[in-house]
This record gives sequence, structure tokens and C-alpha cells, in this order.
Amino acid sequence: MDKEKIRDLILQMTLEEKAGMCSGADFWHTKAAERLGIPSVMVSDGPHGLRKQSEAADHLGINDSIKAVCFPAGCALASSFDRDLAKKMGETIGQECQAEDISTILGPAVNIKRSPLCGRNFEYYSEDPYAASEMSAAFIRGVQSKNVGTSVKHFLANNQEKRRMTNSSDVDERTLREIYMVPFEGAVKNGKPWTVMNSYNQINGTFVGESKEYLTDLLRAEWGFDGYVMSDWGAVNDRVEALKAGMDLEMPSSNGVNDALIVKAVQDGTLDEAVVDQACERILNIIYRYMESRDASAVFDREKDHGTAASVEEECIVLLKNDSDGNGKPILPLGREQKIAFIGKYAQAPRYQGGGSSHINSWKVESALEAVKDFADVAYAKGFDDAQDQADEALEAEAVQAAEDADAAVIFAGLPDSFESEGYDRTHLNLPECQNRLISKICDVQKNVVVVLHNGSPVVMPWKDRVSAIVEAYLGGQAVGKAEVRVLFGEVNPSGRLSETFPNRLEDTPCYLTYGKGRDHAEYREGVFVGYRYYTTRDMDVQYPFGYGLSYTTFGYSDLATDKSGLTDADTLSVSVDVKNTGDRSGKEVVQLYVAPVNSEVPRPLRELKGFEKVSLEPGEKKTVAFTLDDRAFAVWNADLHCWDVPDGAYKIQICRNAREVILETEVQVKNTKRPRQKYTANTCMGELFADPKAQQILGQMMGNNEQAKEMEEKSQGEAVSQEMLAAMMQDMPLRQLISFVPGMTWEAVDQILNALNA
Amino acid sequence: MDKEKIRDLILQMTLEEKAGMCSGADFWHTKAAERLGIPSVMVSDGPHGLRKQSEAADHLGINDSIKAVCFPAGCALASSFDRDLAKKMGETIGQECQAEDISTILGPAVNIKRSPLCGRNFEYYSEDPYAASEMSAAFIRGVQSKNVGTSVKHFLANNQEKRRMTNSSDVDERTLREIYMVPFEGAVKNGKPWTVMNSYNQINGTFVGESKEYLTDLLRAEWGFDGYVMSDWGAVNDRVEALKAGMDLEMPSSNGVNDALIVKAVQDGTLDEAVVDQACERILNIIYRYMESRDASAVFDREKDHGTAASVEEECIVLLKNDSDGNGKPILPLGREQKIAFIGKYAQAPRYQGGGSSHINSWKVESALEAVKDFADVAYAKGFDDAQDQADEALEAEAVQAAEDADAAVIFAGLPDSFESEGYDRTHLNLPECQNRLISKICDVQKNVVVVLHNGSPVVMPWKDRVSAIVEAYLGGQAVGKAEVRVLFGEVNPSGRLSETFPNRLEDTPCYLTYGKGRDHAEYREGVFVGYRYYTTRDMDVQYPFGYGLSYTTFGYSDLATDKSGLTDADTLSVSVDVKNTGDRSGKEVVQLYVAPVNSEVPRPLRELKGFEKVSLEPGEKKTVAFTLDDRAFAVWNADLHCWDVPDGAYKIQICRNAREVILETEVQVKNTKRPRQKYTANTCMGELFADPKAQQILGQMMGNNEQAKEMEEKSQGEAVSQEMLAAMMQDMPLRQLISFVPGMTWEAVDQILNALNA
Repeated sequence: MDKEKIRDLILQMTLEEKAGMCSGADFWHTKAAERLGIPSVMVSDGPHGLRKQSEAADHLGINDSIKAVCFPAGCALASSFDRDLAKKMGETIGQECQAEDISTILGPAVNIKRSPLCGRNFEYYSEDPYAASEMSAAFIRGVQSKNVGTSVKHFLANNQEKRRMTNSSDVDERTLREIYMVPFEGAVKNGKPWTVMNSYNQINGTFVGESKEYLTDLLRAEWGFDGYVMSDWGAVNDRVEALKAGMDLEMPSSNGVNDALIVKAVQDGTLDEAVVDQACERILNIIYRYMESRDASAVFDREKDHGTAASVEEECIVLLKNDSDGNGKPILPLGREQKIAFIGKYAQAPRYQGGGSSHINSWKVESALEAVKDFADVAYAKGFDDAQDQADEALEAEAVQAAEDADAAVIFAGLPDSFESEGYDRTHLNLPECQNRLISKICDVQKNVVVVLHNGSPVVMPWKDRVSAIVEAYLGGQAVGKAEVRVLFGEVNPSGRLSETFPNRLEDTPCYLTYGKGRDHAEYREGVFVGYRYYTTRDMDVQYPFGYGLSYTTFGYSDLATDKSGLTDADTLSVSVDVKNTGDRSGKEVVQLYVAPVNSEVPRPLRELKGFEKVSLEPGEKKTVAFTLDDRAFAVWNADLHCWDVPDGAYKIQICRNAREVILETEVQVKNTKRPRQKYTANTCMGELFADPKAQQILGQMMGNNEQAKEMEEKSQGEAVSQEMLAAMMQDMPLRQLISFVPGMTWEAVDQILNALNA
Repeated sequence: MDKEKIRDLILQMTLEEKAGMCSGADFWHTKAAERLGIPSVMVSDGPHGLRKQSEAADHLGINDSIKAVCFPAGCALASSFDRDLAKKMGETIGQECQAEDISTILGPAVNIKRSPLCGRNFEYYSEDPYAASEMSAAFIRGVQSKNVGTSVKHFLANNQEKRRMTNSSDVDERTLREIYMVPFEGAVKNGKPWTVMNSYNQINGTFVGESKEYLTDLLRAEWGFDGYVMSDWGAVNDRVEALKAGMDLEMPSSNGVNDALIVKAVQDGTLDEAVVDQACERILNIIYRYMESRDASAVFDREKDHGTAASVEEECIVLLKNDSDGNGKPILPLGREQKIAFIGKYAQAPRYQGGGSSHINSWKVESALEAVKDFADVAYAKGFDDAQDQADEALEAEAVQAAEDADAAVIFAGLPDSFESEGYDRTHLNLPECQNRLISKICDVQKNVVVVLHNGSPVVMPWKDRVSAIVEAYLGGQAVGKAEVRVLFGEVNPSGRLSETFPNRLEDTPCYLTYGKGRDHAEYREGVFVGYRYYTTRDMDVQYPFGYGLSYTTFGYSDLATDKSGLTDADTLSVSVDVKNTGDRSGKEVVQLYVAPVNSEVPRPLRELKGFEKVSLEPGEKKTVAFTLDDRAFAVWNADLHCWDVPDGAYKIQICRNAREVILETEVQVKNTKRPRQKYTANTCMGELFADPKAQQILGQMMGNNEQAKEMEEKSQGEAVSQEMLAAMMQDMPLRQLISFVPGMTWEAVDQILNALNA
């Protein structure tokens, strides 16, 4: 429906009808206005499958949902580093939405993984804003290609579950801009989502849902968002203030209570009716965008989509370790002829999704034990139960025996449901002690041990050096078992890369000192040093770095080139590098480009990811991978000027194996041309003045060629004030100190100098 | 002179005379007013000796000073952990001031060692505010007992040399209160200094010298300071604003330029003349306090004071390592019969002080090589030159030969002058590479290697595990050689303890990511986690922890007791512990008491030093050491309420060997009684409400005994919302969300509940 018609419709609505349009009819539907023919449409939880509730009217929103397909969670999908794959998964889910008449799926969830403790990290993409931004935009494009909306969530700085409804995330402007806003910025600019969901929390003491700065000035005016903003479920504090700020749709229904506040506010003149009209227009735009391109023929083909879920997960699995066996052959892939034991409950009943609003009522689950039947005849021992973290000696003994009897033992370990969920955060990074103990006991009797991990967030692996291979499956969706088995037996060459750091221990994490602390305030004191930005800049050892992942083949890099050696912040830089499959198996490599400032006056991370491409290569094949970097690849957010700002200087362009390991690098010089010329003041330091040829000349004349400095220098020979100290003092001395140290100097003279300098 | 008389004097002064009184006559003197008989008095740099300049009129203040005695610098003195010793050193310097007619010595310098890189750390006391506070107050009491003033500096948050004249230290209120203000607070409250020197820097964008908040509200109204505030030399930005804020005396002279601004401001009505009168009154009070109790008979006995300098340093030296030789005997003390080689330039020409305003023109210097003549006949090889960091192969070869020929080699190493000075910061923690190389080469040929360090701030010791003993002499003053030799040969049993952490590497330091970065802003993002507060809370390995130091004897602890097991924030807690010399030599132990909150919602350090006592014990002797803890020992600064605030809960009282090693501990329960009762709001979470019995009852009635929760619980069985998630959701749900989740709930009902709760 065109804008004119929607505006006409709004003109016909009563104030009460318009206020009503700004909140849900129930838990999952927008309100109809039958008198005017306005339909009610449904939204549904996601993001990695449909959680469509069968009883629409349930006022708690926690009843059973329809049988659906559970795809790999965000933690897994992001590890694919494959935009096309994210798009394909989005398309599949979009198709399912059309079949189920769901206008908008509530996702993707793109919040930055500030701490590995966050209970909802399994839904999120990355600790890196660029990676999260690229993957989420691709997913959105996929869903929306089916004419179904997405809702990018949870906007903004919602990085913990603890007290998430009320807590204030206290973050500085630069950190918000460089880290926490970026995935939303990328999603909005490159994905054009139909809706955005604002988060529960406050930022620096203001509810995001009541922030015109974020919901309107940033989202719409700056980033060009043109859909509607809806509240997270229950994230409405003051409905009228929220509406003014730009929160268009309240979800779920407030049973009319908050609608009445809107009506009253218009009536008593504290709310402009045009604000209500605008929210209605935005909501109706999206309702009709959906309604007018309904695909009534769409079918939810669960069997087919299960296959898609498996093929997506295959691209997500990260091979963390693959040592050689006694004969110099890597332990993985396994041979079909080997005598193999599958050990651990998750071989039979995999953990493949997390708890909370993203929880799918899976139509079926394919375990590794089931999938392996097509490959080999394996022994199985349950080894542990995950209902509670308690060692079961009988299960252990059986598992140890099975391992001892085999050529290789594959242990399916991971975090139980109760360890990771929406609603609360972890307090440690450990696997259940019973699992660690089991793995250790199996290592005692079997030298070929493979651990397959099922978890939504990093764990500490005390047995890391004892096992031969580690496969990170993350929360891989309902077809996880199939994907795992295909990787284990080499049908699929693993190509996932970690989109988050696996630290050595919780105490090492950037926000360890403050995360989960503070009654009403979460202090983001680590600033921009989140994830690998922290570990690399402090040169810390980790279990596995961001970007890490092995393959069954090997890749060689050569010929890193840039199209220029110097550029300004108005230019773009083209970078290319050749990558070759140097092994004997086809495989996929994630080519990672980082930018590293050589010297930075501003505190900056050692390097930051600014480009990645996943390339598929046959044995011996070589491809050239090209990147284009614009000013944002070099910029910091300047919180004084409130804009992106490229510091002058040298930058390394690095092609890395992962965030810690540089393969090839080259250097470019970047020049800032956009920043307004700095005005000198009485507090400008002499060092800066003497670095400016013009200032040098003016000062030289006015100060008798720096006689003072010469005199000081002479006096400093061998006494309290050394040459080094003198140089430092001169460097850091503000112009105004001439008053104290130069007899005859006056404020008028200082002003004259400044006028000349600033002329 | 009594207040009345001083006020009368001011009444007789012209406005110009009064404005003139508010700045120096030259670099070191206050202005006289001969017409009224007001004398000019001198101030002089310190703090560890006199830097009295022979030519008073030098306008640069960097000419030669009189021959004086250089005492151990702050870094050394603080390591004594001996209040009486600091007082004694203060008395000696006070006596020297009387002899030289110096009214005020410019010290102590009590800034917190935020980073080991700070160029001026050698003058400062500690990374711990309590230690710095206690030691500085004792020093002040010592100096002022001779009726000579001190000037506590550099107030406030001046923790780097880089751009110190203009830089803004961006620090939050809590961190200022708990860390950076404390040494000044302790100095003012317990030392009653005659003057305070404000620092050059800004805090959060305001020059300290123009901050009424710090110079008047805090210093005077809250802490009771009653002397005058003077500027650091040249630390005047806007003279009139500074005067209004409470900066009474500008130093050095502005040659009348700024006096004229004061006159003009009074004349044009922008400055109340009473402000000028008040500054004059404060300055004159102190001038007459000095003048009226002059000790004309005082003598500067350089020989005697040299002896004092030696005896002070003996208490400061920290024994860091003392392994056993092949025969199970500790390598130190050395035997007079042994064949010993002294190696390294600093044996003959010790580095014993830092550069800048604290630099003393030493009357004589006693090197270890000179002092050792009374003990043994040692070989000497220079080993390295420190003019530049360049290995000299001839010197090395000679030193290696000397070491090889000896039973033991003592290497006198350390940082050259150019590495540490006022005016600039270090950029690394390394010794000159030529010294590290020399030590390593000597370890190749000699297994009994002792390293004696001369440095003002921690260094990284790559040879730490190869040498047998390490003696930290710090910058030990002009008699350092004598003290070192007496320690090395066991005439003195070392009893110093580190008042700062020696980290493993620069990258580990708390403020590594931001220190020295930022053009105009220093971001104090580590907050209260400074020094050991950071390393212990993150459980990080270090070279040597805060409080660490060995002895030639051993000490045993027993019978830790408190006078109560529970207390409120209005009570004090008495703690006692027995300490016994369990070795066969007399010695001194620093008994260290730390307080550790058991669980803290507020981000807090693992433990904090809240008491220390240095006790001297003969072999077999036992003493009971008593401490009294008040509420400050348990409090945090509450930045919402702007007051000290004791969180309820359990606290461990720990007697520690050092910040990492607990010897004995006991637990007490502390209850807050001072905090005003919290008002419930619509954003109060259910968890808090249900923790309050009264609220529980009211809510139970109003909500039909929590039927919603029961319904949710039933629905959650086995599906998306687990028991754990449900519990967490209920806990963190704000009261206002009843509007979204309880049909029939109204804002009126929420208000009713709140009224009942808050009644």
C-alpha cells in the first residue's frame, strides 16, 4: 500500500484506534482494526527457527510451540564466516514464515559477546563487530527475500542477562560507536531490516526504549532505518516517553493500560498526536508490505529444511585440534575401517540449542549415533548423565572399557541445558566436572581421543593437551549429529573459524573485574578492548584465538598487494592476496584481513578485523581474494568531535591465520583531510607548536629564537635537570607558561602569538 | 601571630599589596611588604633532602643548589613500612631547613603509583593508598616537629609525567575517593601539613588549580586543612579562577602579570576582595608560624645526617631472593672470609637518586666499594658503563674473569639516570640490555651471584631464576653503599617490604591499555584496580607481590583474634595477632593486615591493606600486635549517595606475608546501619521485593499468593523456559512488568503497592 493510502487510513482512525495500533493485541499479534479493514499479523520468536505458539492468546507466552526445524544457533552460524550460507539459512526460515503466516521473525540477535559468561551468547554472533555485522546483514537479506520481516535485536548494549530488565550499561560514546553499535549499524545499512527490537536495559541511566538519541537520531536519521521499532517483551517503562523517543510498537499487549496513557497524553497536550500518527504509519507500512506480497503457496517442508540445517552446520563446525597418531597421520578424519567408540550422552541425545525465547520444539533430532550408521559400526557408551553434575561410576566404567576396546574414542561432551539459557549468565567457564573427569579417565586408557563439543560459548578444557583432536560443534541445530559424523569421517572438510576467543581462564577475560557486578550499573570499563582486541593488545596467551580453525588440507598465501601505498581518509584502498590449497583435499579457507595502526596516540587495539572472505579451493587451486577498505577501516570514533576520525600515520594491512597469527603484511600511510584544523590556545604545548612550521617561525621571531631554551640547556649540564628532562619539559609546556618562565612576557603577548598562529 | 593581628595587617594592605602577597617574589620566596614589616620567607625543593638554590633570583630555577644530604627517595622510604623511621627522617630534614632558613620543604610527594612507567614514581610512596597515607603523615609530623612546613604534593591525580601540565586525568568519583585522594586525605588529617601543592593537571576536564570542589570543599571543609595551597611551579591557568577556587599562592612569580589580573578583577567586580584577603590571611598565618618559632641555633650537621641517611636506608632495603648455596646455607649474608667480587659501575658510583626537582647536590656519596673496606677485601670490575646502553666487551670480559675467580659475585645493577626522571615517563620496564647481558654472562661462570638493584621503580629481571640472591636497594640516598654492605654482610638484617608490585611484564600492568596514550585525556579505566588490587583479583602471577620481602630470620604467626564476630559500620573492630621470631637472629617483621569481602555485589579488590606494624624481635621473642579497624576498613565509596558506605556481609580479616600470601584469617559479619532505607519504585525487581519480608507479605496478598508464578512454573516443564530461567526471570523482573504479564493489572494498582511498600 502506498504512503498516501496509509496516511488516508490513519486519518480515518480514532485516537483510541491509533493508540491501540501502537501495542500488540496479545503476545504475538498486532491489533486489527476491522472497521477499516486493517489486518492483524503475527510475529514469532526466532532467530534460528520458528517458535510459533499454537495458542495465540496465551498471556504468558511460554506454552508449547509448533513442531519446527531447529537450525544452528548464532554462535555456530557465525563460525561459518560465510555470508552466502547465512543468507541461505535466512531464505529457508523466511520460506517457513510464509508457510506459517508469520509476518516477522524476531531476530537476528546481534549483540556483541562482551563476556563469555553471558547466558544468551549462544544466540549472538561474535565478539567482533565487523563479523557480527556482516553475518547478520546476510541473514536478514535471506529472510526478507521471502517478503518476511526481521527484527534486529536487542538494540542496544544488552550484553548480560543479569538484571537485564533494569540494569544500566554504562558505556562511553567511543566504545558504543566502535563496538556495540556496529552490528546494528551494519544490519540496518546493509540488511535493511523491517523492524528493530529495542532492548530492556538502560544506557548510561536512560532506558534505550526512551532514548530519542538511539531510536530516532541514530537509527533513522543517521543510519536510514525506515521500519518500525518494537519493544522487547515487557521493555516498556514509560509508554508516552517511549513513543516520543521512537518506540513505535509495544509488545506484548498491555491489555489497554498503556494505550490509555497515550490517549490521555494527547488529550492533555503532553504528546503531539502527530507522534502517534507517525508510529501507526510505520507499523502499517510493514503490515501491508507483508500482507500485499503473501506467498500463499509456501510450504514448510520439514524434511528438506532438516537437510538444510545439516548442511549449514557442516560449514560451521570448527576443528580446534588434530594431532597426528603414532604413524604421523592426523587422527581425523576417522577411517570407516577403524574400531571406534562413541562415548557420552550427547552422541545419542545431542545438546543442540539453548533455552529461552529461541527454543525450538524440534520436529526431529538427528544424533551422531544415528547418523553414524551410514558410515561405520561404532560402540556406544553413555559415559555421563547431564541431569546433574555428578559422576556415575558405572557409566564411567562402561565408557572406559569401550574406549579401551577401540582404536579411537570420540567423546561427545558439552554444556547441559541448565548451564546456558536466556535469563541468566554463567558464573564460570567449566564443563561439568563429571565430563572433565570422564575425558581424563578415557585419556588414561586410549591415546586416540577425539572430543566433540556442544556448547554455546567458550569452555575451559583442562584435558586440552591430552586429547588428540577437538571438534567444536557449538549448538548445531537438530541435524547436528549428521554434520558431526560427516566431518569426523571426512565427508566434509571442516571450515569453521572461531568468531570468539577461547580464553585460558575466566580471570583473563577483558571485563572480568566488573562483569555481573554492580546492582544497577554494568561498567564497560574495558572500553573498545573486547575479545581479541584485549588479548592481542596485551599479548596474552589463550586457548584458541578469534579466527582460529583447522582444516584437513593446508593453505598457502602469497602476493599481498595494495593499489596504493598512501591514501587519505577520502580514498578507498584495494587489497588483494593469493591463497592456494597446498594440500591434497578440497577445502575452504577463511581469508582474514586485519588493520593494525603502527603507532597510535589514541588507545587502540593491536589489530582489528576489517575484511573476510570464505573461498573454496580444490587441491592445488589458487584464487585471488580482493578487499576494498574505506575510511572506516582506519577510523576511530572521536568523542570530542562526535564523528569518525582517521588518525594520520602508518597502518599495517595484515592477512592473518587468526587474530594472533600474521601470515603476510604490508604498510600504507594514511592522511586525515577531514578533521577541522585545530585552533591553538594558551594551553597548546610547545611540542605541538614547534611541530608546525608556521608556528615555529612565529614563535622563533617572538621569542628571540628560543633564547630561554638555550639558557636552560646550558644550565642543565650535569645537574638536576638533565637534557632528557629539559627536552620533555619543553615538549609538554603549554604556551601560557611563558608567563611564569619568561620575564617581560604578558598575556597580551600570548594573545598576539595566538592570533598570529590561528590567522 | 594571632588571627586578629594578621587581619589587622591585611586591613592595612593596599589591594595591590594583597594581590602581590598571592604570588612569589621570585622562584623560591614569598613577597615581603617592608612597609608593614611582613618578611619574605623561602621555600625549597625536597622532599628527600634540600635543594636550596644558592642564587635566589635565578628565574629558571635550575641552577646549582647548595651541598646537602640526599636521603633515600620515597620509593625506598616507603619500603621500610616504618612510621617512626619516616618521622625521624622528617625531623632530620626539618632541622636542616631551620639551619638553612627554609620555611617550607616542598614535599612529601604522595601520588599513587598508577603505572610503574611514571617517571616520577621514585619520589612517590606506593601503589597502595593506605601505605602512602601512613608513611607520608609520619614524615610530615617529623618535619613539622621542627617548626618547618611541608607541602603535600601533587594534589591531585597527577600520575604521569607525559603532558602533565595540561593533560586531564579522567577518573570516576569512586576511584578518586578510594585510591587517589587517600594519601592526601591521610596526610592532611593525620599530618596537618602547613601547605598543599596543587598539581598541573586537569581532572575530568577542570584544572585542579581551578577546582573549588577539590581545593576548598574537599581539602578544607571536609578534611580540615587550614594552611595555604600553592601552585606547582607554573601550574596557573586562569589566576582569578584559581584564587576563587582556593589556590592561595602562585609560584613562581609571574613578574606581576597575574597579580595585575587579580587587582583588575576586584576593581571590575568579578572577584570579591574578601577572597584575596582570605588567601593573604592563610599565607601570612604560615609565614608567621614559621618566623615566630625560628630556631636560630639549628645546625646542618652534614656528617651526622649522612649517618642518618645510611641508617634509614638500612631499614628500606628489600631482600627479594636468597637461595641456598650448595651446602644448604643461604647465600646471604656473605662471610667476611669469602673471596668476593663486586661487579658493576654502581658499586663504585651508585645510582641513588632521580632527576628533576628532587635532585640533591650531594655533599658526599658513600659507595659500596668504599664502605666494604671495613668488612672485606673485595675484587672490583666495572662491568658496564651507563652513559649509553652499549655492551663494552672489555669491561664484560674483566667482570666475568673477576666473577670466575671469586667465591661469590655481587653485581651492582640498576637504571641509569636517563631512564628515570621527573618530566618524562619510561616506555618499558627493562634494565639496560648491557646489564642483563652482563648478569647472564656472570651466571655462566659463577653459581653464587647476588644482584643489588638501584632503581626507582620496578624492573623486569630476565635472569631472576639464574641468580642466587636479589637485593632491592631502590634509590637509597647518598649513603646507600654503606647500607648495602651492612645488609650484604649481615650487620643489618633486611626488613624492607615492597610497597609496589613487581609485575612479570609491562603488558600485565593494570593500565597498560591506556597509560601514556591519549593526547589530552588519561583514561583511568582500571578504576580502583590499581597495583596489587588488580593482580590479586585477577589471580595473576607476578615477579614479586606488594608487601613482599625476605629476612635473615623467620617469623611465625599465631592466635589471630578479633574482639567481636559481628559489628556495624558504627563500631570499631580490634584485631590482634601474635608474631614470633622463629629463627636465630634478631630481625624486624612487617605485620600486614588485609580486609577481604567474601562476596561483593560492587566490583571490589580481592583484598586491601588496612593495617601494618613493623615489629622488632629477638630470636625466640614473641609479641602481640594489635590493630583497630573502623568503618573505612570495610567501606566503598558510594558514588550514587556520595558517601562512604559499608556493604553488608562477611569480611575476612587476613594476616598476610604479602598481598598474595595469606598466613592467618578469620571472618566477621558487618552490618550497614547508616545508609538511608531504599525507596521502592516501579523499577525495583521482584527479587529484591521478595527478599523483604514486609514486601513479600504485601505482594502475596495483592497478587493472590503469586498465582502467576505458579502458572508459569507449571507451563515451563520441559520446554523453552526452564526452571532456572523462570527463577532468574522472576528475580530480575521489575514491578512495572506486572502491567505486561498480569491481566487486569493497572498503574494505579502498581502505585498502591508502592505506597504500601514505602509507607
